[in-house]
Amino acid sequence: MQAEIITIGDEILIGQITDTNSKWIAERLNEIGVSVYQITSIQDDKEHILKALAEAEANADIVIVTGGLGPTKDDITKHTLVNYFDDELVMYAEIAEHIKKLFAIIKYPYTASDLQQAMLPKKATILQNNQGTASGMWFEKSGKVFVSLPGVPNEMKGLMQNHVLPKLQNNFKLPYILHKTINTYGLGESKVAERIADWEDNLPKFMKLAFLPSYGKLRLRLSVNGWDKIAMESAIANEIEKLHLIIGDIIVDYDNGDTIEQIVHDLLTKNEQSLAVAESCTGGAIASLLTKMPGASKYFLGGMVTYSEKTKRELLKVSANAINNHTVVSKEVAEEMALNCKSIFKTDYAISVTGNAGPTTDNTDKTVGVVFIGVATPNDVIVKEFSFGTPREKVIEKAIIKSLELLRKEILKNNKNSLLDM
Amino acid sequence: MQAEIITIGDEILIGQITDTNSKWIAERLNEIGVSVYQITSIQDDKEHILKALAEAEANADIVIVTGGLGPTKDDITKHTLVNYFDDELVMYAEIAEHIKKLFAIIKYPYTASDLQQAMLPKKATILQNNQGTASGMWFEKSGKVFVSLPGVPNEMKGLMQNHVLPKLQNNFKLPYILHKTINTYGLGESKVAERIADWEDNLPKFMKLAFLPSYGKLRLRLSVNGWDKIAMESAIANEIEKLHLIIGDIIVDYDNGDTIEQIVHDLLTKNEQSLAVAESCTGGAIASLLTKMPGASKYFLGGMVTYSEKTKRELLKVSANAINNHTVVSKEVAEEMALNCKSIFKTDYAISVTGNAGPTTDNTDKTVGVVFIGVATPNDVIVKEFSFGTPREKVIEKAIIKSLELLRKEILKNNKNSLLDM
Repeated sequence: MQAEIITIGDEILIGQITDTNSKWIAERLNEIGVSVYQITSIQDDKEHILKALAEAEANADIVIVTGGLGPTKDDITKHTLVNYFDDELVMYAEIAEHIKKLFAIIKYPYTASDLQQAMLPKKATILQNNQGTASGMWFEKSGKVFVSLPGVPNEMKGLMQNHVLPKLQNNFKLPYILHKTINTYGLGESKVAERIADWEDNLPKFMKLAFLPSYGKLRLRLSVNGWDKIAMESAIANEIEKLHLIIGDIIVDYDNGDTIEQIVHDLLTKNEQSLAVAESCTGGAIASLLTKMPGASKYFLGGMVTYSEKTKRELLKVSANAINNHTVVSKEVAEEMALNCKSIFKTDYAISVTGNAGPTTDNTDKTVGVVFIGVATPNDVIVKEFSFGTPREKVIEKAIIKSLELLRKEILKNNKNSLLDM
Repeated sequence: MQAEIITIGDEILIGQITDTNSKWIAERLNEIGVSVYQITSIQDDKEHILKALAEAEANADIVIVTGGLGPTKDDITKHTLVNYFDDELVMYAEIAEHIKKLFAIIKYPYTASDLQQAMLPKKATILQNNQGTASGMWFEKSGKVFVSLPGVPNEMKGLMQNHVLPKLQNNFKLPYILHKTINTYGLGESKVAERIADWEDNLPKFMKLAFLPSYGKLRLRLSVNGWDKIAMESAIANEIEKLHLIIGDIIVDYDNGDTIEQIVHDLLTKNEQSLAVAESCTGGAIASLLTKMPGASKYFLGGMVTYSEKTKRELLKVSANAINNHTVVSKEVAEEMALNCKSIFKTDYAISVTGNAGPTTDNTDKTVGVVFIGVATPNDVIVKEFSFGTPREKVIEKAIIKSLELLRKEILKNNKNSLLDM
């Protein structure tokens, strides 16, 4: 079963916003066994929308369209769909009532054009949007499904979860799509490819391997598509067992796409241990990443962003000695930051980060890209020095990931039992 | 001049990563006068790539392809391009030398497949990649340009800036594309549309209007495409003047896409004033957003993420009285957090955020989505209560934006002169 995702909106094509909807939709479709054949972003232009719909109809079984359903004149998706399906707009009284109710809740008067949002295609099944005035529309045409959803992320997500995904599972007999990601660390893409060349050549025909290099690590992803979930899982397990014999030394862990922050989150939650962070060049990004996950308050007690030398001294009590003799970007300062952070917040673990993200080096003797990361543990403190190069955003990104990876290692070291079930 | 961007890689279509490259490329192309007609994401599949190239050739003048240039077997873009252009691979000795040099710098041995990266299409102009082994390739075919770039963001960006953008400006006579965004605040999309209906109907034919609603605000974007930059600018200024007479009461400001963090960053830098933040439910995200911008250290002294009640008491010195009588999610606690943060960091301004992002409410009497935001200023402190609804990510996102908007207002109030040049 193949799907195409079409996003409509000039704001994507002029680079004003990033299309995050398509990633989310693609992930959800994969989970229920629908492969995404293509993602297409196009302008709010009638002819272009009609062309994209026709091409999608030729190539895919399911077409998910987002965007262009607002109440203003630049929103033309609804009218274009009516045109494409040779349909007409009719008033859906229950949707009009729903729209009135939405405005009553926020105590705000509705306008005539808000009510026009209840004028919807006669042939479509209307999917009620609990968060906004733009309804979802479900069309069927010669066995193919077309769904039109608003582009506002929360509204799109609500409609997908409440209506579209269950309806797709009802309408189609869907296969399983399994992905297993193997996280490796410490060896370049070409080196790894060399070592696993024979294994790769002998993979079963139905299994697909992808190399996903990113800052400081390489992920290998195995994908299988089929009907027999148990056989597929065992085939993947089988290949991973063989792989472990070849590159077991560089395999960090396996996951189904879990991020490093999710892994740390799960570990600390399971172990009932606590964490605080002292951030300089990452500027709160580590705290932010962790606290985006519901349940972070179970283990995350807090953080300090000590962006200036003064705040490092006054708030984190870093000694004048360490700063004067080694500058703020140093092993010594990172160590004191981690230890003091742990004791100030009274946690089991603390992370510290101090470095030069650039573009200038300010008052240190270290070059741009040099970052010291400390992890204070129940019994110990470790500090590692890194050289993350340029530009600034890469340095910050690498420092975040590396600090969470170091923390993960230390948690595992301090909770030997956990190793068994990772 | 129309461009199409094609991204190649299964990881986008299974929803493993968000395609941020295309947004960046689209923004850069717009800046030099190239409109993006379509963005297409496809799998690492030869037939599909060939089909996408042919379609792009039919519709666009410039085709930018990213992804699939790594040294491993799942990277098939190069071979597919050779096929498409009826070309052959030859060894580029200077690229081989460059690859060897890259490995020498990081003191890491190269493999045979790394050197294979110097086998490149004979007909292409090769664009040297200073950050990796995958070169860019520039093809020309009946007046159209095809560029293939690696998918690793920093490598792609380097090649675009050093080679592709200057070459495009050299090759084509490019028009100007101007966008002007008007930020409004406090009125819904349909209400605004109603008020400006006549103005919208009378816009010059060459001017395009878009409505961009997002959390709590509505942006209006005017776009013009043409050769006479001065005439275009004056036409936009003319329309904005008229618009101001109609909805001047809800216009916050005008920008060319500046984010609220950029506006705050510029204001504080210009006024030489300092800021600290005390974050609870936003968990470091405000600090992180500001410190991502180079130069933030000029005004940003630091932040505290007081995620637990205990840390609010111990680190931010919030009174037991305020917490016990009003819970941690209250006007009183937000006010103390802002004032104490300002005095701890000794700054001109401090932001505080305390709220329930959900999904649960923990130990407070407030419903999920309720957030109090405080701003301490040189002479005053203000606190506002908001109800951001659900889900968690929306609450956090809205709290971040709202807190920076409140800060912006207070800075302007306290620096009357600045108002003149905003």
